[in-house]
Amino acid sequence: MTAATTFRYEQLAGLITAMIDNGTLAPGARVPSVRTLSIRHGVSMSTALKTYRTLEDRGVLVARPQSGFYVAAPRNGAFALPSMSRRRAKASTVSISGAVAALLEYSSNRAFIPFGCAVPDGELLGSKRLDVALARAARREGARYNVYGPPQGELSLRGEIAKRAMRVEHMLSPDDVVITSGCTEALTLALTAVAKPGDTIAVESPTYMGLLHTLEMLGLKAFELPVDPTRGIDVGALAQLLATERVAACAFASNFNNPLGSAMSEADKRALLAVLARYDVPLIEDDVYGDLYFGRERPKPFVAFDGGANTIYCSSFSKSLAPGYRIGWITARGRTQRVIERKLAFSLCGAVLPQIAVAEFLASGAYDTHLRSVRRVFQDNLVHMARVVEASFPPETKMSRPVGGFVLWLELPKHFDSRALFDEALKQGICFAPGDVFSASRRFRNCLRLSAGHGWDDRIEDGVQRLGQLAREQLAQ
Amino acid sequence: MTAATTFRYEQLAGLITAMIDNGTLAPGARVPSVRTLSIRHGVSMSTALKTYRTLEDRGVLVARPQSGFYVAAPRNGAFALPSMSRRRAKASTVSISGAVAALLEYSSNRAFIPFGCAVPDGELLGSKRLDVALARAARREGARYNVYGPPQGELSLRGEIAKRAMRVEHMLSPDDVVITSGCTEALTLALTAVAKPGDTIAVESPTYMGLLHTLEMLGLKAFELPVDPTRGIDVGALAQLLATERVAACAFASNFNNPLGSAMSEADKRALLAVLARYDVPLIEDDVYGDLYFGRERPKPFVAFDGGANTIYCSSFSKSLAPGYRIGWITARGRTQRVIERKLAFSLCGAVLPQIAVAEFLASGAYDTHLRSVRRVFQDNLVHMARVVEASFPPETKMSRPVGGFVLWLELPKHFDSRALFDEALKQGICFAPGDVFSASRRFRNCLRLSAGHGWDDRIEDGVQRLGQLAREQLAQ
Repeated sequence: MTAATTFRYEQLAGLITAMIDNGTLAPGARVPSVRTLSIRHGVSMSTALKTYRTLEDRGVLVARPQSGFYVAAPRNGAFALPSMSRRRAKASTVSISGAVAALLEYSSNRAFIPFGCAVPDGELLGSKRLDVALARAARREGARYNVYGPPQGELSLRGEIAKRAMRVEHMLSPDDVVITSGCTEALTLALTAVAKPGDTIAVESPTYMGLLHTLEMLGLKAFELPVDPTRGIDVGALAQLLATERVAACAFASNFNNPLGSAMSEADKRALLAVLARYDVPLIEDDVYGDLYFGRERPKPFVAFDGGANTIYCSSFSKSLAPGYRIGWITARGRTQRVIERKLAFSLCGAVLPQIAVAEFLASGAYDTHLRSVRRVFQDNLVHMARVVEASFPPETKMSRPVGGFVLWLELPKHFDSRALFDEALKQGICFAPGDVFSASRRFRNCLRLSAGHGWDDRIEDGVQRLGQLAREQLAQ
Repeated sequence: MTAATTFRYEQLAGLITAMIDNGTLAPGARVPSVRTLSIRHGVSMSTALKTYRTLEDRGVLVARPQSGFYVAAPRNGAFALPSMSRRRAKASTVSISGAVAALLEYSSNRAFIPFGCAVPDGELLGSKRLDVALARAARREGARYNVYGPPQGELSLRGEIAKRAMRVEHMLSPDDVVITSGCTEALTLALTAVAKPGDTIAVESPTYMGLLHTLEMLGLKAFELPVDPTRGIDVGALAQLLATERVAACAFASNFNNPLGSAMSEADKRALLAVLARYDVPLIEDDVYGDLYFGRERPKPFVAFDGGANTIYCSSFSKSLAPGYRIGWITARGRTQRVIERKLAFSLCGAVLPQIAVAEFLASGAYDTHLRSVRRVFQDNLVHMARVVEASFPPETKMSRPVGGFVLWLELPKHFDSRALFDEALKQGICFAPGDVFSASRRFRNCLRLSAGHGWDDRIEDGVQRLGQLAREQLAQ
């Protein structure tokens, strides 16, 4: 990305981060007031404030009410950030299904300590009120809803989703929303609506293993783009790719990409969209973690910046409310009809009662209260987990600093073998996700992902400690 | 099909049918006893009995307890059977999605008299006990089941499905069953597991419009096979096709094909499987109407005859119990892993609570009682509907004699335009399915399908009468 496309607040944020990294600004130090920053750098008050809030969202600064912004305290041990992934020379044919299926099977086995699958524990999600809504709808209106619903989904649910989308400047009418069986079906519909077998899809590296598996089953190739562990996709690398290769679509996380947990700034999102517009390449965005932000406010999805002209938005309630209900959605503006046709062809329509229950839950206003509590739990879990990782893993370990979601990404030295660690860990009753399933070209074998989606307790803490011990032992050999 | 592959009882059944058709055996006449038939034709008692039971299943004979078999009374007006469809010279690229989507939209509009969509009315299905099971599971165990279930589906449900399959000699273990979002997803998984875009799939003509739509979305071609309105697929034509064309798979109804409602005899099923085995072509069978038989016992699916070696079985509870729950399943023996991989890629897993509820409902034994009642209602509906059709439609109308399911297929003279009738009928608040959506090459424009899935009442009766009147008016012009 060129300087011309970087917004002023991003440049300032970079400057302050550098001052912290080189020790000019010490942990705990109060940074200059917003007014001082504004005067000193010749920017408006709002740009100065935006600079600090961006750094707060990234966990670099903390805000103290009525006092100002401070440099965040480093955590125990202060593991460095993972490296930025390198670019690939060409698109990869994906062959990952066996590894994904095996991992899912281990992850669903309750005997293992559950760091494997990025799914929150049902107990932790506390979906009582939603379950009661489902029970009520089934008892009172079971016969009425025992029909094929419209392929597009129940109108009441589409209306609630459209209302919520407005809050992040994603302007929707209920007619723009298509209900899906989770975000996975949304991604399948999006990919089949814009690409045909043999086409290339640009993806983040590392990226969500399920996306890679879907690409494989649809006969699509993956082009892996470099991703910065805090800033997200390297927009310059994307521009270079599109200048030289035919790419049918990009499939990126909107926020808190899995497994890194980073978020792109608004400036970078706009720059990325400008590059895509130049080459007329559609973007499929997966915002499934978007509601699980740790910063001040929910970051906007890409679609909020381009109005959906060439962006297909996919999300679900699976990470924040109800993985067991399988309710996701997709919005595709000019391609809505293509998406509905595919929904009809692949699964006809969704189950009606779960849609009615989720619509009622959303209409009650309970989702916001629920999200506040869930976000706090995930953030606390990650703080705990990071602390224990820093105390137990080899000192060379690098660790992500997620600003949302509930997964942690660890990078060990190049020769480390997370597959060997995986086999050892399973013997000790611990499951996690080895790094290579996050890459179409099976990179990241020295990395691993830990999910913090279960309530923190001694068993979980002990699991992280023992995993760190196993990693130390492997490195010492 | 050559005589050598036709079983003895089929030959005898043909002989008796001919004697009825030419008036040798009059309606209401008692046919010779089983013993007499056995002696006269030199066949075993069991073959003689099977002959009569086959004719009973086809509605040609009726059995009277302690008395014997009688020639069934002709219905009022006695409309002739529809013609056997002709063979096509080549495979067709399918382009039907717009017509299917439009029809579904009209069909889901409760303002219209509902002859359009082959879906039973929720009130008629009386799913109270199932809904209560869902409500109970949601209230008591919502948190426990608020997880991603296994992609293959809940073990308890797979176990119940395997148990029921045994009754029709479909030998299964729970590990052979994969739960899907209705039969539509089952068909999608089956098709993508055995075919790639551009491949040809052999289908019945006429066939289920949803299958054609799925073929179109997957980029598959359809080869339309002739179907006899009582005996089903022309096995000889299938043999000729496979001898000359590369066909990736066949996709046929197991029983009571939609829209004809006919059933193949066991002899014909075996002969068909022998032809497929000769050319090593897999069969995808859709048994979604199988539980809705009007004869003595549930006809077996194809898979019961070949043990599943090269047969993929698809079904659901949507026609008989719970269209709103979206629970189907697929069994694919040697291809189970391929099917699970695709389920995982396209929709990850099914909603858990609806699976738990259906499993509990099946385990309670309530499904058999439920089916007995639903079958009687559908058969009564069809008798009513056929009577009113014969009284109101033009005398040249030909009409199917369904032996299961709940749809009726009407064929009018060649120049009749069911699309024009459709437009007129909509103006009068009546919806039905025009014939051309049942063909990849848009044949059957002179035909139409009426669904009898709603409880019979004056509104429904009046709808059939007015539709018949409209058809008469069009023909008179």
